[in-house]
Amino acid sequence: MKIALAQINVIIGDFEANTRKILKFIALAKTQGADLVIFPELAITGYPPRDFLEFTDFLEKAEKSIEQIKQATDNIAVIVGSPTRNPVIEGKDLYNSAVFLYQGKEIYRQHKTLLPTYDIFDEARYFEEATQWQTVEYKGCKIALSVCEDLWNLGNENPLYTINPMAKLMPQQPDFIVNVSASPFDYTHAAERIRILKENVKAYKIPVFYVNHVGAQTDIIFDGGSLVIAANQTIHTEMPYFTEHLQVVDLEDVNVNKTDNEQSKNKISLIHDALVLGIKDYFGKIGFKTAVVGLSGGLDSAVTTVLAVEALGKDNVRVLLMPSQFSSDHSVKDAEDLAKNLGIRYDIIPIKDIFESYSRQLNPLFEGRNFDVTEENIQARIRGNLLMAISNKFGNILLNTSNKSEMSVGYGTLYGDLSGGISVIADVYKTEVYDLARYINRDKEIIPVNTIQKPPSAELRPDQKDSDSLPDYDILDPILKQYIEERQGPKEIIAQGFDRALVERILKMVNRNEFKRHQTAPVLRVSPKAFGMGRRMPIVAKYLE
Amino acid sequence: MKIALAQINVIIGDFEANTRKILKFIALAKTQGADLVIFPELAITGYPPRDFLEFTDFLEKAEKSIEQIKQATDNIAVIVGSPTRNPVIEGKDLYNSAVFLYQGKEIYRQHKTLLPTYDIFDEARYFEEATQWQTVEYKGCKIALSVCEDLWNLGNENPLYTINPMAKLMPQQPDFIVNVSASPFDYTHAAERIRILKENVKAYKIPVFYVNHVGAQTDIIFDGGSLVIAANQTIHTEMPYFTEHLQVVDLEDVNVNKTDNEQSKNKISLIHDALVLGIKDYFGKIGFKTAVVGLSGGLDSAVTTVLAVEALGKDNVRVLLMPSQFSSDHSVKDAEDLAKNLGIRYDIIPIKDIFESYSRQLNPLFEGRNFDVTEENIQARIRGNLLMAISNKFGNILLNTSNKSEMSVGYGTLYGDLSGGISVIADVYKTEVYDLARYINRDKEIIPVNTIQKPPSAELRPDQKDSDSLPDYDILDPILKQYIEERQGPKEIIAQGFDRALVERILKMVNRNEFKRHQTAPVLRVSPKAFGMGRRMPIVAKYLE
Repeated sequence: MKIALAQINVIIGDFEANTRKILKFIALAKTQGADLVIFPELAITGYPPRDFLEFTDFLEKAEKSIEQIKQATDNIAVIVGSPTRNPVIEGKDLYNSAVFLYQGKEIYRQHKTLLPTYDIFDEARYFEEATQWQTVEYKGCKIALSVCEDLWNLGNENPLYTINPMAKLMPQQPDFIVNVSASPFDYTHAAERIRILKENVKAYKIPVFYVNHVGAQTDIIFDGGSLVIAANQTIHTEMPYFTEHLQVVDLEDVNVNKTDNEQSKNKISLIHDALVLGIKDYFGKIGFKTAVVGLSGGLDSAVTTVLAVEALGKDNVRVLLMPSQFSSDHSVKDAEDLAKNLGIRYDIIPIKDIFESYSRQLNPLFEGRNFDVTEENIQARIRGNLLMAISNKFGNILLNTSNKSEMSVGYGTLYGDLSGGISVIADVYKTEVYDLARYINRDKEIIPVNTIQKPPSAELRPDQKDSDSLPDYDILDPILKQYIEERQGPKEIIAQGFDRALVERILKMVNRNEFKRHQTAPVLRVSPKAFGMGRRMPIVAKYLE
Repeated sequence: MKIALAQINVIIGDFEANTRKILKFIALAKTQGADLVIFPELAITGYPPRDFLEFTDFLEKAEKSIEQIKQATDNIAVIVGSPTRNPVIEGKDLYNSAVFLYQGKEIYRQHKTLLPTYDIFDEARYFEEATQWQTVEYKGCKIALSVCEDLWNLGNENPLYTINPMAKLMPQQPDFIVNVSASPFDYTHAAERIRILKENVKAYKIPVFYVNHVGAQTDIIFDGGSLVIAANQTIHTEMPYFTEHLQVVDLEDVNVNKTDNEQSKNKISLIHDALVLGIKDYFGKIGFKTAVVGLSGGLDSAVTTVLAVEALGKDNVRVLLMPSQFSSDHSVKDAEDLAKNLGIRYDIIPIKDIFESYSRQLNPLFEGRNFDVTEENIQARIRGNLLMAISNKFGNILLNTSNKSEMSVGYGTLYGDLSGGISVIADVYKTEVYDLARYINRDKEIIPVNTIQKPPSAELRPDQKDSDSLPDYDILDPILKQYIEERQGPKEIIAQGFDRALVERILKMVNRNEFKRHQTAPVLRVSPKAFGMGRRMPIVAKYLE
């Protein structure tokens, strides 16, 4: 049997375009002689459809898509993920299903059993879990259908679920496992899913065909990397990352391999490629072409601008340099150099005059109070206003340039430098932004070396440095990572040898600044724990404060 | 047996203060001769603690609180809600439990069975469901313990769950039901919970003691309204709304009543009181005292300011009037009149000069393009910057004044009038804001009549009216309500007699503006479907667009 894996990039709720794409890939699989083509989890709707699933109209459109796809299954079978309705009144109204279509008929629906409800996942919000498991017979083979998480309750120290759907299917002696997935990228994920799939193959001793989404859905990025793993636990196929792809695999060939066909998994290059795709799909899927960035001469805006140029092309990115009275000469020079290296349009608007017009109005109210964070914020917000004016006038989207370290501790101005449609590097710690910059410069100097080497500064008061307010990033970032990614509390972090007072100060800053993160743009997710839907914290609280 | 219901207002994660309050209420219940005192669901931690539940340190602190409370149970029993750990490795690590303490010992933990995972609720994210149910014997009575949702799978057309924990407990012949709750306010909720509790009493024929939280947790407001319902289905006690309260009820007296002791439930006065508490607790719980509001002379900012004065006192609210060159004379006059009626400080800063300083910088880039929404937004963002400057300099929190109608269709400027720490009326449709204004003026004219009677306008271009861009609120609001609260699709709404093109246009505006709502302040929730965690929509999507 020839099996096609269709790793596709869909748009949430765009039934017409998604169905058209699925039909195109079916046709392509046919021309390559496939007997079966597999699409990802909820391929019909896009993942995650979130509360659109509560609309009858949305479900009807999904059902209509299934009908259309069914018509294309004359001499090829199709497995495709879709929400389906639960006919029983008690329980949630929907299932998350892998639907098996053949010869114009629906042969079987296997509902998902294990419904991820953690991090960015909310599946228990919508779906009832499966209580029936049945293999599908096709061309002399018995196929075990599973949906994403169904294979993930194996080989973990602390399993999240009390059952394993594959254990229910094994007595029926399936020949191979199909897993339709929507398994989002983070820089650990490609390795982790190979480990989990190998655990399954080890336990059940049959091959697995795993098909993942590719493409970004706002903040959530799918990397593809669909897999065929042989019964002997070797990787027969690992499909490319970050691109749509159809691969046809002959079942008979699968167990012949003896060595893993695996792509290299370099953390920084993966993050780089994910962010480029994240920008590209954010713009492409909402129908925008051009971006604007505020370029300060510092590292974060430089890296963001380079990523934008890679995603959108140099003619579709423009930057604004907005020096303040506190900006150093080299800032403008560094920013200009970068713009010239990239060949993008740049404009310079000094903010001093506008700042003075605010001061004239506010000084009577401020009654001789000292220059403080207020004046720093006014300047940051003038820049935000200028950037949004360019965005509004020319139909560009403003890219936010905050990094994860500053987002964590609230080192940024709401409605100022925290503005933007999408946050490009807000899931990348400052120390990792340096790695990204060096990666970008791997062949030649694109980002000026001075930008990489000078001490970080917001330049909103005389001689300001980040290190005036924050510990060095080499110390800050590991503490943040323990708290945010690893969910370690103060006791555990201090036990690792970090200074007690510093740890307590930083954790308090993280908690206190939840209100800022609540009002910022979606953050392209590249780590196992990004700000946004994956990390849900109370705003008003007094924990560790 | 004398049973005390302790309707308390706690702070999420403030174990010290919460435990102190619980001990105080236990002491108070003792002085009133109570044998048993009941606290709400997760009273130890506050509700919802969200991802703080993933921290071991947080759980240890909850356990320490239980230990402290245990010491106070020498001659009084205590039922209190707390997260507890699941000792089994498989499954989620926590339970949401009602813990029964007496004579310094933990007598029993009843875990929650039905874990709400819809709207603002995420309980399946953290908790494993109960699989054991046991009544507690105390002073000759058998008590059935339940946690909130455990009683809510009864009397619904479309039950969310397939089991009912009370059905598991009834064979043990309990004498009464205790329900510890965290049941958030919306203007339909007090009536609905009485209906549901009466369904339980009707089914099981024993009284129910229902204890709810009171107080706001950022956006989520708990109204209290704890209840004792007799076996004959009459309301023996309905505790006051929006205030902490301890009430002692003699079990023997409960079934004597023949008529409902029920408070009146006027929608607008409930919303009014909820919003005042929402503001008060937002400020009080983060340790802020003073607010600033941008007062335009229009209805929304007027209503917001009055609510702020009720919550914080007139000395703690200041307003800024920021007329543009397009503002009418009556706007400033109406705003001044309101400030004078309330006796609050007001300052006037015209924005024309600052706007001109932006124009001078931007005009070379705008190359003679026409005045458009860009210039409207620049003005709105100048106001945002001025308000935030006051906020930063004087330590006030800016209150956002957007209403639900504009939030729905995106009629507002991100980083401009959409700024603020908390959105006071963004869950109140414009037509309901009028009702609130009339309610505020019920005894005397506080909000100038002219503010209520003039046509709504943003005054950002010459002779602008809301009705230039939007249909009349009398038509817009019912369509929005069908889509947002009732989750009706275009077909169903058009079938109700609304114009097809208009419905399609409005639904598209709602979906397209998700990106703005994503970046705005938390919204005080007063309806069954508010913007925020209760309504989770993709940002990049093409559904109904």
